[in-house]
Amino acid sequence: MPTLDQAASARVPIDTIRFLAVDMVEAAGCGHPGAPMAQAPLAYLLWTRYLRFDPDAPDWTNRDRFVLSCGHASALLYALLHLSGFDLDLDELERFRQLGSKTPGHPERGLTPGVETTTGPLGQGVGNAVGMALAERLLAERFNHEGSTLVDYRTWAVVSDGDLMEGVASEASSLAGHLGLGKLNVIYDANQITIDGSTDISFTEDVAKRYEAYGWHTLQVSDGNDLEALAVAYDTAIAETSRPSLIVVHTHIGFGSPGKQDSSAAHGAALGADEVQATKANLGWPESPTFLVPQEARLPFVEAADRGREAHRQWRELAQRFASEPGDHAAEWQRIQSGQLPDGWATDLPSYEADHPALATRSVTGAVLNGIAGAIPELVGGSADLAGSNATDLENEPNQSRHDPGGRNLRFGVREHGMGAIANGLAIGGMRPYVATFLIFSDYMRAAIRLAALMKLPVIYVFTHDSVLLGEDGPTHQPISQLLSLRSIPNLTVLRPADANETVAAWHVALERRTGPTALVLTRQKVPVLEATSADGVRRGGYILADTAEAPAAIVLASGSEVAPAVEAAAALSTEGTPTRVVSFPSWELFEAQDADYRDTVLPPKVTARLAVEAGSPIGWHRWVGPKGAVHARDGYGASAPTAALAEHFGFTAEHVAQRLRELLA
Amino acid sequence: MPTLDQAASARVPIDTIRFLAVDMVEAAGCGHPGAPMAQAPLAYLLWTRYLRFDPDAPDWTNRDRFVLSCGHASALLYALLHLSGFDLDLDELERFRQLGSKTPGHPERGLTPGVETTTGPLGQGVGNAVGMALAERLLAERFNHEGSTLVDYRTWAVVSDGDLMEGVASEASSLAGHLGLGKLNVIYDANQITIDGSTDISFTEDVAKRYEAYGWHTLQVSDGNDLEALAVAYDTAIAETSRPSLIVVHTHIGFGSPGKQDSSAAHGAALGADEVQATKANLGWPESPTFLVPQEARLPFVEAADRGREAHRQWRELAQRFASEPGDHAAEWQRIQSGQLPDGWATDLPSYEADHPALATRSVTGAVLNGIAGAIPELVGGSADLAGSNATDLENEPNQSRHDPGGRNLRFGVREHGMGAIANGLAIGGMRPYVATFLIFSDYMRAAIRLAALMKLPVIYVFTHDSVLLGEDGPTHQPISQLLSLRSIPNLTVLRPADANETVAAWHVALERRTGPTALVLTRQKVPVLEATSADGVRRGGYILADTAEAPAAIVLASGSEVAPAVEAAAALSTEGTPTRVVSFPSWELFEAQDADYRDTVLPPKVTARLAVEAGSPIGWHRWVGPKGAVHARDGYGASAPTAALAEHFGFTAEHVAQRLRELLA
Repeated sequence: MPTLDQAASARVPIDTIRFLAVDMVEAAGCGHPGAPMAQAPLAYLLWTRYLRFDPDAPDWTNRDRFVLSCGHASALLYALLHLSGFDLDLDELERFRQLGSKTPGHPERGLTPGVETTTGPLGQGVGNAVGMALAERLLAERFNHEGSTLVDYRTWAVVSDGDLMEGVASEASSLAGHLGLGKLNVIYDANQITIDGSTDISFTEDVAKRYEAYGWHTLQVSDGNDLEALAVAYDTAIAETSRPSLIVVHTHIGFGSPGKQDSSAAHGAALGADEVQATKANLGWPESPTFLVPQEARLPFVEAADRGREAHRQWRELAQRFASEPGDHAAEWQRIQSGQLPDGWATDLPSYEADHPALATRSVTGAVLNGIAGAIPELVGGSADLAGSNATDLENEPNQSRHDPGGRNLRFGVREHGMGAIANGLAIGGMRPYVATFLIFSDYMRAAIRLAALMKLPVIYVFTHDSVLLGEDGPTHQPISQLLSLRSIPNLTVLRPADANETVAAWHVALERRTGPTALVLTRQKVPVLEATSADGVRRGGYILADTAEAPAAIVLASGSEVAPAVEAAAALSTEGTPTRVVSFPSWELFEAQDADYRDTVLPPKVTARLAVEAGSPIGWHRWVGPKGAVHARDGYGASAPTAALAEHFGFTAEHVAQRLRELLA
Repeated sequence: MPTLDQAASARVPIDTIRFLAVDMVEAAGCGHPGAPMAQAPLAYLLWTRYLRFDPDAPDWTNRDRFVLSCGHASALLYALLHLSGFDLDLDELERFRQLGSKTPGHPERGLTPGVETTTGPLGQGVGNAVGMALAERLLAERFNHEGSTLVDYRTWAVVSDGDLMEGVASEASSLAGHLGLGKLNVIYDANQITIDGSTDISFTEDVAKRYEAYGWHTLQVSDGNDLEALAVAYDTAIAETSRPSLIVVHTHIGFGSPGKQDSSAAHGAALGADEVQATKANLGWPESPTFLVPQEARLPFVEAADRGREAHRQWRELAQRFASEPGDHAAEWQRIQSGQLPDGWATDLPSYEADHPALATRSVTGAVLNGIAGAIPELVGGSADLAGSNATDLENEPNQSRHDPGGRNLRFGVREHGMGAIANGLAIGGMRPYVATFLIFSDYMRAAIRLAALMKLPVIYVFTHDSVLLGEDGPTHQPISQLLSLRSIPNLTVLRPADANETVAAWHVALERRTGPTALVLTRQKVPVLEATSADGVRRGGYILADTAEAPAAIVLASGSEVAPAVEAAAALSTEGTPTRVVSFPSWELFEAQDADYRDTVLPPKVTARLAVEAGSPIGWHRWVGPKGAVHARDGYGASAPTAALAEHFGFTAEHVAQRLRELLA
């Protein structure tokens, strides 16, 4: 490892980072040069002296994690990855922000080797980092033992003023302080400038004091170019193992730019040819060639990478010893690393007879989770202070805390957005997280859900209290638009099961899904256990739940709690001489993924008398019912009243559904 | 005003509040008794000695505002309103949480006299209170002058642990501290219990220290039953005029309940008959009748109401003198109170010739706002740190700050959710707020948008950078689901105008709308100024923008930036012999509100060859194109590349649209 004396000659590699970023943005004609210019020293020091990684194995489990929460500083990260020897050539840097490049405007997990998480929407990276640090704690607790430290890494995040203004960061940080995540180190690039100008215009709080109030360890570095001071801060942060650390580093946005340093003009636009020239002159950097990487700039990164490779090699030896240990842990470790569920994991899923008393679909979650939790230790999760209502408690597990670092019951507090961002970090860290709240509060965490879908993370959302039929809590708590708006998020699979057995099947789908998140939308109120539900049908998104011997003359499509009245209404119609089919339709996405033959079997094109029934927004159902069909939904807000009164009031009764069918057929 | 000695005999009215709440919840069989039981003393003191209101005129402008941010404690508020003489009879309390009552599960603005804002989703009330205090500052600054203090009221909020865990509260509180809103007093009911149990399991931060970090004045009351200590705290908070005050009051949830006090069991369920009996016995309260209101309990409330009526009477005299003053201010005051726009407000709206250079629809906002800002002083707003990008700056106005308390440019910082909640408070306070961010970040503030719609508040949302066509920022910033998911919020009107003139028309719609919020969805990229756009057409949501002399054989429907390529494609098809109509379709909600004749004129049922083109989720368009139509949209995520490359890649070019039309017709 270089001494700090050597680091004093770090000017060349640091300026290399700066001007790679400047040149990238200039070539693209857009981007964010100012933050990379400010952050180059703190990032240089971190990546060459502290961060443990193997550029040949970006997914090595025991690497340190680096989160660039201020994703707009992506050019910094691309420069670091390139210099560190990741599979990111200089020509990719030259293609910054171009179609098909590995250097998009904001870092994207899965696209660029070494990018741990997709960032850009501010504050999210803070939550991701908390989740990643928590994943490390959980894995370490389960797999490390005396003499065998398989899991021991640190999570570093670089965050901006903008990140720390976001509520999602506040929520996640408060929880991180509560949990005492000592291996989480957050470097705050306090440059006092945001897009609109100085933070003086809107952000004058004492951030360090706020973080102390959260229970964090805080440090100050008054000059972001002072590598010695930065090193002292990093060392001190590392030495503090019982609290997360916030290192406040005072920097100058656009450092070195004579005309734009310390100005919002450096934030989100190319400097411009003249200012690039002036900046290079000012810092003594050759004006050309662009994308210049002097050999001496590569050296410290090469050394760091070599140290990382060696650490990885040693770790592999450790892992081999671990693999030969007696017991199941090594196989379990391998399985979790592979992302596979254990064989036979589903054997302990509950099932329900049709004569079982009615039960809320939400309450099935508790039976599912407790049935499988033993087999799937990576399954961790909890609720935003609604564990009882959401039925998410694991009965034999302690609450996660600094005293129970292996505890799998996560108590998020009333922090839905933080929960969503932390869940993403947990999934990135190799866990299978489930997180829960009322469906209405999915709105609070929507930005995190979208990022899970974009990142293809297998997070499971448990959203209970799913319609106006939740009852007396009233319109403030009754979802109307939420179900549809979740369906509209690409790569999120949404399931709204009709009864207990469909709920078990929906959980099955969710757990087997590895390429994106799944939302389970569940009732507060009891619903009957239906006859003839089909797990395969749930898997297909929609299926014939009830039919008559004759060809159907009408079809009722419904999801969730509206299926039971639909079945009853269809039976009435069939008795009246109109053979009526019931299609249980828990998931649009899964049904769309079926082939046309299957879809046409379920919804024969010639049967145009179709009624969709769902206690939520009607939008989108017209696709399934066609121009001669009808939709019975809830387009306005709800009301505060007992469930039965609301079902009557809003027409979600068998009688009303039958009446709507008769009107449609008339 | 009673002395504190008299207040010492406050036990009866305080217990009256407690047991009204207990009996309400018990009668409903559900609800939240614990918080009202804890908060009764602090609320009693506030309502009988501090809060200025006139129960006969709940909307009196110069009343103090009371926000119950922890809306689940609604029974407390209903008890206070009843005792204070608002139009809320005891039988309404007896019908708590029943269909059609004025006492829904959570307080609803507009339904119950004296309820200032709809609460329940936690944290929102904190933001609302900040907005209400800011509205007071703005109105006071504009209308008060030496010797005439027309506007001078305080905003009080009661908040819970859950409220202060929410990021939206953090964001709003940080801004309130920055702005130094000295007339905002927040009473924090620190009962250390949330639904899941003790706050020890998830919320151990030092809240007061956090608020000090925000720049707040903080106070502690160690015993929530100690009226003298509470009075000292209230007085001290009132005396601090340069900072908002947080009064931390340590209380006992479910106070008086032998079996449930200090337990989460008291939070969200009826106590149960036995526990009610035990609690009444414990506090020396008659077991029956239920809903007991001893005459002595009414007395302090009657006195407070009488003082309020007298204050209102004196204020009316002041207002009459103000009305007779020379100048326009009195007329302006009257107009703002009435919620009307001034005559001729729209005369300075910009308009654009068809030969005008292409311009981004977002940039029209600046011209609109600056054209009308002088005429509409209640128009205030800003952006979540994207003022330049969103074009929301008022050129001749200072930034709102403690030094410029009349400044109408609001700098929200990167705090979208707080901005949304504050906007709701501004609208409640009589302002016409507009708030802005990128469309993608509407997700961050969605919960506040929904509440604006539920409360029928005329907030205007300016959402720019509205599709994948925003370019290089990439998938993290490119909206797919957001447009549709906004459309799915009941009572939110969404407009996505096609060009500069449609944008002006959309602003016209937004400003004239008084019964709910409006979202304007605008491009980042330049789009041509189209011929034949129609302001009336925009008002109707959809209209024939281009047609041929013959009856159309095909129709292209498009919104926003996709209209221009649709026009070009239709022209090509028409030239090829397929008369093709273009329907500009900026607003689904407005089009749906038209009569069937109009809709059928625009979209004749017999023309089934219809193509919808929109760079967002395809969901919902099938309704408009029918089963023989097609939708060209963007169902997956975007990519980072220049706009032109993305338009080509995703097929949002005239050529591709024409090709899709030809395929449809084949």
